[in-house]
Amino acid sequence: MAVKTAEQYYDSLRKMKPAAYILGEKVADITTHPLTRGQVAGVAQTFALAHDPEGRDLLVARSDLTGEEVSRFVRLYESIDDLLTKVRMLKFLSQRTGTCYMRCTGLDALNAVGVVTYDVDAKHGTGYRERFLEYLKYVQRNDLVVWSGVTDVKGDRSLRPSAQPDPDMYLRIVDRNNEGIIVRGAKAHQSGSLCANEGLILPSREMRESDSDYAVAFATPADAEGIVHVYGRGTLEARAIEGIDLGNVEFSKFCPMVIFDDVFVPWERVFMCGEYEFAGPMVRLFGSYHRHSHGGCKCGVGDVLIGAAAAIAEYNGVANVSHINSKLVDMIQIVQAMYGCCLAASIEARESDSGIYEVDSVLANTSKLFEGKEYHEVIRLLVDIAGGFVADLPSEKDLRNPEIGPLVEKYLKGTAGVSVEDRMRMFRLIEKLAFETRDIVSNIHGGGSPEAHRMTLLRDTDLEPRKRLAKRLAGIEDRERE
Amino acid sequence: MAVKTAEQYYDSLRKMKPAAYILGEKVADITTHPLTRGQVAGVAQTFALAHDPEGRDLLVARSDLTGEEVSRFVRLYESIDDLLTKVRMLKFLSQRTGTCYMRCTGLDALNAVGVVTYDVDAKHGTGYRERFLEYLKYVQRNDLVVWSGVTDVKGDRSLRPSAQPDPDMYLRIVDRNNEGIIVRGAKAHQSGSLCANEGLILPSREMRESDSDYAVAFATPADAEGIVHVYGRGTLEARAIEGIDLGNVEFSKFCPMVIFDDVFVPWERVFMCGEYEFAGPMVRLFGSYHRHSHGGCKCGVGDVLIGAAAAIAEYNGVANVSHINSKLVDMIQIVQAMYGCCLAASIEARESDSGIYEVDSVLANTSKLFEGKEYHEVIRLLVDIAGGFVADLPSEKDLRNPEIGPLVEKYLKGTAGVSVEDRMRMFRLIEKLAFETRDIVSNIHGGGSPEAHRMTLLRDTDLEPRKRLAKRLAGIEDRERE
Amino acid sequence: MAVKTAEQYYDSLRKMKPAAYILGEKVADITTHPLTRGQVAGVAQTFALAHDPEGRDLLVARSDLTGEEVSRFVRLYESIDDLLTKVRMLKFLSQRTGTCYMRCTGLDALNAVGVVTYDVDAKHGTGYRERFLEYLKYVQRNDLVVWSGVTDVKGDRSLRPSAQPDPDMYLRIVDRNNEGIIVRGAKAHQSGSLCANEGLILPSREMRESDSDYAVAFATPADAEGIVHVYGRGTLEARAIEGIDLGNVEFSKFCPMVIFDDVFVPWERVFMCGEYEFAGPMVRLFGSYHRHSHGGCKCGVGDVLIGAAAAIAEYNGVANVSHINSKLVDMIQIVQAMYGCCLAASIEARESDSGIYEVDSVLANTSKLFEGKEYHEVIRLLVDIAGGFVADLPSEKDLRNPEIGPLVEKYLKGTAGVSVEDRMRMFRLIEKLAFETRDIVSNIHGGGSPEAHRMTLLRDTDLEPRKRLAKRLAGIEDRERE
Amino acid sequence: MAVKTAEQYYDSLRKMKPAAYILGEKVADITTHPLTRGQVAGVAQTFALAHDPEGRDLLVARSDLTGEEVSRFVRLYESIDDLLTKVRMLKFLSQRTGTCYMRCTGLDALNAVGVVTYDVDAKHGTGYRERFLEYLKYVQRNDLVVWSGVTDVKGDRSLRPSAQPDPDMYLRIVDRNNEGIIVRGAKAHQSGSLCANEGLILPSREMRESDSDYAVAFATPADAEGIVHVYGRGTLEARAIEGIDLGNVEFSKFCPMVIFDDVFVPWERVFMCGEYEFAGPMVRLFGSYHRHSHGGCKCGVGDVLIGAAAAIAEYNGVANVSHINSKLVDMIQIVQAMYGCCLAASIEARESDSGIYEVDSVLANTSKLFEGKEYHEVIRLLVDIAGGFVADLPSEKDLRNPEIGPLVEKYLKGTAGVSVEDRMRMFRLIEKLAFETRDIVSNIHGGGSPEAHRMTLLRDTDLEPRKRLAKRLAGIEDRERE
Repeated sequence: MAVKTAEQYYDSLRKMKPAAYILGEKVADITTHPLTRGQVAGVAQTFALAHDPEGRDLLVARSDLTGEEVSRFVRLYESIDDLLTKVRMLKFLSQRTGTCYMRCTGLDALNAVGVVTYDVDAKHGTGYRERFLEYLKYVQRNDLVVWSGVTDVKGDRSLRPSAQPDPDMYLRIVDRNNEGIIVRGAKAHQSGSLCANEGLILPSREMRESDSDYAVAFATPADAEGIVHVYGRGTLEARAIEGIDLGNVEFSKFCPMVIFDDVFVPWERVFMCGEYEFAGPMVRLFGSYHRHSHGGCKCGVGDVLIGAAAAIAEYNGVANVSHINSKLVDMIQIVQAMYGCCLAASIEARESDSGIYEVDSVLANTSKLFEGKEYHEVIRLLVDIAGGFVADLPSEKDLRNPEIGPLVEKYLKGTAGVSVEDRMRMFRLIEKLAFETRDIVSNIHGGGSPEAHRMTLLRDTDLEPRKRLAKRLAGIEDRERE
Repeated sequence: MAVKTAEQYYDSLRKMKPAAYILGEKVADITTHPLTRGQVAGVAQTFALAHDPEGRDLLVARSDLTGEEVSRFVRLYESIDDLLTKVRMLKFLSQRTGTCYMRCTGLDALNAVGVVTYDVDAKHGTGYRERFLEYLKYVQRNDLVVWSGVTDVKGDRSLRPSAQPDPDMYLRIVDRNNEGIIVRGAKAHQSGSLCANEGLILPSREMRESDSDYAVAFATPADAEGIVHVYGRGTLEARAIEGIDLGNVEFSKFCPMVIFDDVFVPWERVFMCGEYEFAGPMVRLFGSYHRHSHGGCKCGVGDVLIGAAAAIAEYNGVANVSHINSKLVDMIQIVQAMYGCCLAASIEARESDSGIYEVDSVLANTSKLFEGKEYHEVIRLLVDIAGGFVADLPSEKDLRNPEIGPLVEKYLKGTAGVSVEDRMRMFRLIEKLAFETRDIVSNIHGGGSPEAHRMTLLRDTDLEPRKRLAKRLAGIEDRERE
Repeated sequence: MAVKTAEQYYDSLRKMKPAAYILGEKVADITTHPLTRGQVAGVAQTFALAHDPEGRDLLVARSDLTGEEVSRFVRLYESIDDLLTKVRMLKFLSQRTGTCYMRCTGLDALNAVGVVTYDVDAKHGTGYRERFLEYLKYVQRNDLVVWSGVTDVKGDRSLRPSAQPDPDMYLRIVDRNNEGIIVRGAKAHQSGSLCANEGLILPSREMRESDSDYAVAFATPADAEGIVHVYGRGTLEARAIEGIDLGNVEFSKFCPMVIFDDVFVPWERVFMCGEYEFAGPMVRLFGSYHRHSHGGCKCGVGDVLIGAAAAIAEYNGVANVSHINSKLVDMIQIVQAMYGCCLAASIEARESDSGIYEVDSVLANTSKLFEGKEYHEVIRLLVDIAGGFVADLPSEKDLRNPEIGPLVEKYLKGTAGVSVEDRMRMFRLIEKLAFETRDIVSNIHGGGSPEAHRMTLLRDTDLEPRKRLAKRLAGIEDRERE
Repeated sequence: MAVKTAEQYYDSLRKMKPAAYILGEKVADITTHPLTRGQVAGVAQTFALAHDPEGRDLLVARSDLTGEEVSRFVRLYESIDDLLTKVRMLKFLSQRTGTCYMRCTGLDALNAVGVVTYDVDAKHGTGYRERFLEYLKYVQRNDLVVWSGVTDVKGDRSLRPSAQPDPDMYLRIVDRNNEGIIVRGAKAHQSGSLCANEGLILPSREMRESDSDYAVAFATPADAEGIVHVYGRGTLEARAIEGIDLGNVEFSKFCPMVIFDDVFVPWERVFMCGEYEFAGPMVRLFGSYHRHSHGGCKCGVGDVLIGAAAAIAEYNGVANVSHINSKLVDMIQIVQAMYGCCLAASIEARESDSGIYEVDSVLANTSKLFEGKEYHEVIRLLVDIAGGFVADLPSEKDLRNPEIGPLVEKYLKGTAGVSVEDRMRMFRLIEKLAFETRDIVSNIHGGGSPEAHRMTLLRDTDLEPRKRLAKRLAGIEDRERE
C-alpha cells in the first residue's frame, strides 16, 4: 500500500483522536469541520494526484530503504535530480490547490534529521541514524503524513531558551527514564498538525550547553496523549462557516498552535537528546530545505495569481491594455526569480556525508527573500489589476435574493460573454489569494523570518575570496607581493 | 445647531429609511447591525471630536455662507490654510479611528461642484452655482453627512458609457420633466452611503457629446425612493458577527454598492445636466481633492501602523533591535512622504475663478502614488515586524476556555510585564490593520486606480520648459539662436 | 554693493591667493583652469541671476542686520516664507546650471551657527552670538561667498575623534593664545572651497568631554596661511581638458580636500571653542538645513533630467511611446516627492529661541532619503530612456574629421528635423548628468550618508504617542484604566 | 593550435589592418593605444586562462566538428551541461577581469546562426547550414575571436528599416553578384569589434517582406575593406591617457561604432540573405543566449563589487557594522538572483531541431531584468558603503608630490594597518566599477533594452494554462462543464 489513495488517507485521519480545539470548543472530526476540511482536502490531493498519470511522475519514486515505490513526500533527497523534481512537484501541486498541502515540512524535516543524525553519531557514537531509518521505513510503508514541528512560541525573544522566566517557552525535555523522555512546550503556526498522522519535532534555533534540554528531536503520533492543537484564526472564516463566497471553492489552510503538555516519547523515536551543538545545524538545514520548498510551492501559487490577474483583466474588458501587461510582467519576473533560484539551489547542491543531498543555502535563501518581500508586491499587483471589487463585492446571497438579485446581476456585468457569477467567483478567488492570512503571512514568515534569511545569506557567502578578487584588480595584491 | 453632537448624528440616521441589504437580507437599522455599526461609530467621531478641545481647532470653522461655525466637512476651501488644516484634521481623525470615517468624499465633492458649477455657469449662463450654494447652506445648517457617489460600475471597461451594450453601466439621466430628472445606474465601493444623510453624485469620467446623458451631478437624500444599498463583503466578518477578536475594538469600515433604480431628483438639486465637457474637469478636480484627502487620512492610519509595529516589537522583546529599527524607518519614510506631499500640494494651491482653492494636482497625485504602491510595503513591514501570529492567533474564546485557557495563556506570553490579553489584542489589531480588505484595497484603488494617478501626473507636468532647460545646458539653444 | 555682480565676484576670486593643487601641480588661477572654471561659472550664476528680473525675486531680500538688500545666500531664515523661498530659489538655480553652485552649504552653516551660538551663550554666558552677528554683517555687506567645512576625513571610522591613533583625523584646536586659536585637520569633499571667499568651519559630529578640542567652529578666509586645497578627481576630466564633448557646456563641479595645516584664527572669528555638548546640535541642525537645501537643488537638476529624457526620446523618435511615458512618470514622482517633502519641512518649521526658523527634521530627512536611494533610479531611468549611446558616443572630433565626419553624421541621425550635432549634444549632456561622480555621489552622500538620514528619522520621530494610538484602538488602554 | 596562447592572439591582432579612429584620429595599433589596450588585455585572458589549470576545465572542450579540443568560445551548445558550464566560465572570467572580455557575443551569435540556418534550410532548401559549419571549423581551427554585430543605429526608432528616410539606418544588402553581396549600414556599441579577428553580423530585429534586403547574416574579417571602426568615448579616459589612477589596473572596455561602407562578402560567408521571416527568430535566439551570458558575466563582476564593498568597509573601519552588513546582503541577493536564474535557464533548456540547445527564454530574460534595474542599485549600494571619496579622491600624483604628498598621506589614512596607497587604489577601483559608462550602460542596455526583455517575458509566458488553473480553483470550470 506504499502510496495511499485519498480515501485511505481520510480513513487514517478518522481513526485518530487528537485533542483539537477550534474557537474555544473541542472538535471531534476535523475532516468535516467547515474551518478545517479545506486543508484536509488539500493534503488529500497529494494522494489523489499520485494516482493520476501526470502527477505520478512527479509524486512517486522508488525508495532505497524499502525497495518499494513510495511517495516523494516521505523519501530522502538522494540526488540533484531528486531536488529538481521536488521543486517541480511542489509547483505542480500548488497550481492545483492554490494554497498549502502541508507535507513539505515533514519531507524537509525527515531529510534534515537524516543528515544530522549521521553527524551526531559520527561525533558522539550514538545510534540515532539507525533509529531514524527504522522510523522512516515505518513512515514509508504506511505512507504517513508527517508534520514537522519547529517554531517555538519563544516568549521574550531577547532571551535564550534557558534564560526565559518560564522555561517552557521553547520545547524541552522535562524528564528522562528507561522507556523514553517527557517533553513540554508549544510550537506555533503548525500548518499541518491536525491533518497529519505523525509529528517530527525539531529544535527551532541554535543552542548552547546551558540549553541542552532544549536540544531535542523526536517523532510522535499527532494524537499522542498530552498534545493539544489549538486552531489559529484567519481571515474569511465567515465564508467557510456559511459555505458561500469561498473564493477557492475546495481548498484552504489553517494553522494550529500545538501544545506539548508533558508528552511521553519512547527512545526509539528520539533522534537528538542533548547534543546541543547539533541543534543549530539541524534547524539551519531544515531551513534551507524548506526555503527551497517554498520556491516551488509559492511559484505554483504564483501561476494561479498570474492566471487570476489575466482572467479578471479579460472579464473586466482590459486585456492587452499596456499598463496591465506591464504589471503582468512584474508579476512573472518575481515568480520566475523564486523558481529559478530554487532550481539553481538544486543544481548547486552538495552530497552530505550521510549521502543525502544538501541544497545550496545561498540560492535557496535568495529565492525565499524574494518571496518575503517582492511577492507581497505580486499580490498588490493582482489587486491593482483586478480593481476595487476585491474590497467589497456583494455576496452570492445578494445575487440569489429574489428582490435585488436581478439588480445585482445587472450591475455586476463585465465584458460581454462572461457570466456575472463567473466574474464574481473570480473576484472571490482573488480576495482569497490576496487576503487569506494563513497564506500571506506564510509568504513572509514561513520557513523563518526575512531577517533569518538575510543573516543566512550573509553567513553562507564567503567574502574573503571576493575581497581578494577586488584587491587583485585594484593592483593591491601585486604591491603586497613586493 | 450648526455642529451636531454624535448623538444628534445617530438620531438623524435612525430617522432615515434606506433600502439596505446585507448578505441577502434587508436590514432595518444599520446603526446596530454588527457588520455596519463600526463604521457608523467612526463617522460619529467626526461629531464627537468637534466638541473636544483638541479636535475643535481642526474640525470647526466659520462659514462665509451662513456666518455660523460649521464643521469643516461641509465647508469650502477658502484659502491655503484651509487646505493645510484639512490634511491635519484628517490625520488627527485617522489616528483616532484607524480606519475610514467617510466624510471626506462629500467634502471633496462639495468643493469640486463648487468650482465647476461656477465654470459651467460662466460658459453656458446656467444657474447651477446659486442652486448649489443654497444646497450647501442647507447642509451646513443641518450639519449633514454627505456621501459622494463617483465610481460607476463600468461594465466592459474598454467601452465608453454610451457604447455599452447595457446603457446603465454608467449612471445616466433616463428622463427629464418639469419637476426634475430621473436617473438610473449604480455606484460601486460607496464607503459612506449607509452612514450618510445625503448623497452628492458626480460623473466618474470625462464624457463626449454622445455621452451627454451621463454628464449629470446632483444631490439626493440617501434614502430616496429607488436607491438600494447592497453591502459589500470584507474579510474578518466572523469577528464582527461574534463580537470577539475584533482587532480595532470600536471602528470598522464597509462599502455598499449603491443602485439608483430610477431615482427622481428635483431641479433644485441638479448641478450638472448634459454639459458633457465639464464632466472631466469635475471628476478630475474631485480626484485631486480626494488624493489630497488620502494623504492626511492614510498618514493618520500610518501613525497607527507605526505605533502598532513599535508596540508589538516591545511586547515580543525585540524593541531596539537593529533590523526592527531599520524597518520602522522604512515605514516612517513612506508615511511622511505621503504627508509631506499633501502639505506641499496645499502650499502650491491656486485660487480658482470661483474663489475656491484648487490643490496642486502633481503633488497630490504624487502622494497618492506612494499610497497606492509603497504603503502596501508599509503594511508588509508591519507584518514582518510583528511575526507569525498575525497569521493564526488562537481566539480569545480559547483564552477563556476553562480547559485550555491556562495553557493558551502560558504559551502566548511575550516579554515580562505585558499581559497575554494585551499582546493578543495588539496582534488582532495588526491583523485588522493589515488584512481588512475595505481598508487595504482603498489604499490602492481609493481616489482612482494607480494608473489614473500616473496618467494625471504626466498630463499635469509640463515637459516643454523642462526640455528647454536641458537644451540650454547642452548648448543646443545657443546654436539654434545663431 | 550689497549684491555683487558676477564680474565683481570673479574679481574677488582673482585677488585671492589660495594654495591650490590640481593633479599634483600648484595652480595659480582657478577661474581659468579647465578643471575648475566650470564650477566658478556656476557660482557666478548666483550673482548674475540676482540681477535678472525673474531671479531677483528669489535671490534678494532685505537684511534685518544691515537694513540693506542682500543675497539670500548670506541671510538668516527669519520666517517660514524664507524657508519656502529658499527651496524655490535653489530649484530655480539648479534648473539653470544642472549642477552645484555651492553657496547653500555656507547659507545653512550661517543659520546653524546663528541658532547654536545663541544656545551656547544662554548656557555658558559666552559672547559668540554677538561675534557671529558682526561677522555676518561683514559677509552681507561684501556679499561674500562662504563655503562650509563640515566633513572630517575621519581616519578609522570605528573610533571617536580623541581615540584615533593620529589625533588630527578630526579638525581640532592644537593651540590657544591671546589672539586666537591654531587649528589642524582636514575636511573632505569641500565642493566650494576654491570658489569661496570665506570658510565657515563646523564640527562634523557629536562630541564628548574627551573630544573638547574638536568642538570648534570658526570663520576664516579661504586663502588663510596653512590652508591647502587639493583637487579631487572626477569622471569626464578628459573632456574638460580637451574642451570638447562637455555635455553641460558651461557648468561643472569639483570638490577639493581642504587641509588645515596649523591655521591661525583670531578670537573674533571663533564661534565655538570647547563647548562639546553643542557640537552635535550644531552639526545636526546644519544637517537638517542642508538636506532641506538638497530637496530644492536636486529637484531643479531633476527637472533637467526629466527634460533631457523627454528631449532625447523625441530625438530618437520614441516620444509618447507607452513605456517611455511610464518611465517619465516614475522620474517625476521621485523628483516631486523630494520637492514636496522640502516644502512641507518648511511649513512645519519652528522658530528657535534665537528667532531663526528650524526646518522640520523628519520631513527634510525624508526628502533626502529619496535623493539617496530612489534618485539613483531616476538616473537609471534617464539612461534607460536615452539608449546605448550614453555609453559610447563617438567624439565631436570624429564628427569634425574630414575623412569619417560625413559617415558619422550619416549614421548618428535620429528623427527627421533634428541635427546630428544637437542629438550628440543631448547624449553628452545625459552622460554628464548620469556619470559625473561629483554630482552623483553627492546625491548619495551629500548632507551626510543615507544611514545618517535614517538614524535622524528614527531619533526625531516620537514613537510613544503612536504606540498609545495603537493601544487605544486595540482596547488596551481601556482595560488598563480599569 | 586549436587553443591559442595570449601571445598568439596578440600576434593575430597585430597582423590585422582595421580602419580604426579614436577621437578623430586614425590609429595604427590598438593593442598599445592607451584607450584600447585594456580591452585587448581582457580578451587575452580568455586565451591565457585556457592554459591555466583552474581555467582549463571551464574554457576548453572537445569539438564534435573537428574532433580537437577547442575554446568554448567557438563551440556549439551541445547539452544542458554546456550551458551550465558557459555560465560558470563567464563568471570565472569576469571575476578575474572585472569588466568585459567580449567573446560571448560571438559565441552566442555562432549558436543562434547554427540553429536558424538549420530552420531556414528546412523551409527554403537553402544550404546555409553547411556553409556555416565550414566557417565554424575554420574559426575553431584558428581559435579566432569573433565579434557579433547586431545593434543597428536605427535612425528614427518609430520607423521600420525600409521606411526610414535614409535606407541605411539598418544594415542592408545594396548589391548582389556572382561572387557575393555588398552590404551597407552601421552597428553601434560593438564592444569587441577592434579586438576581434572576425565579425559575425546578424539582423537586429524582426523583418517583414518589405524589409527583405535587411534580412542578412554573414561573417567577415574585422578589417575587411569598407569597415570603419569609430571609438566611442567613455568616462575616465583621462586616467587611461595619463596611465595613473586607473582603478582597474589592467583591464578596461571600449565600444566602437562600426560602419559598413559598402563591404563585399563572398557567398560562402553569407548565412541569411532575404529570408525575412527568420530575422526575428535569429535575433531573438541570439538575445536569449546573450541575456544568459550576462547572467554569468555580470555575476562575476558582481562578486568583485561585493568584494570591493567588503574591502573598503574594512579599510574604513566599519566592517561588521549592522547597516553595512545589511547592504551587503542586498547586493548578494541581486547578484545571486541573476546567477540562479541563468543556471535555471540552462536546466530548463530544450534541444532544437539543429541539435543545439536553446536556453529557457523566460528565465534568461528574468535574469537580465534584474541586471537592467536592480543591478544599478547594487552599484549604488557599493558607493553608499564606500563613502564620499568615490566622488573626489585626490590623484596619486598628489600623493607623489613632494610638497603636499605627506599631507595627503596623513589625511587619507583609514583603519590602522592599511596603507594609504591601498586604500586609494580600492577607492579608484570602486570609482571605475561604478562609473565606467561602457560597463554601467551595458548593464542596462546590453543584450537589448529592458523593455525588450519585458516584452519577451510576456510573449514567452503562456497565460492560457494559468488562467485555467485560476478558473478551476474558483469553481468556474465545474460550472462550465454543466
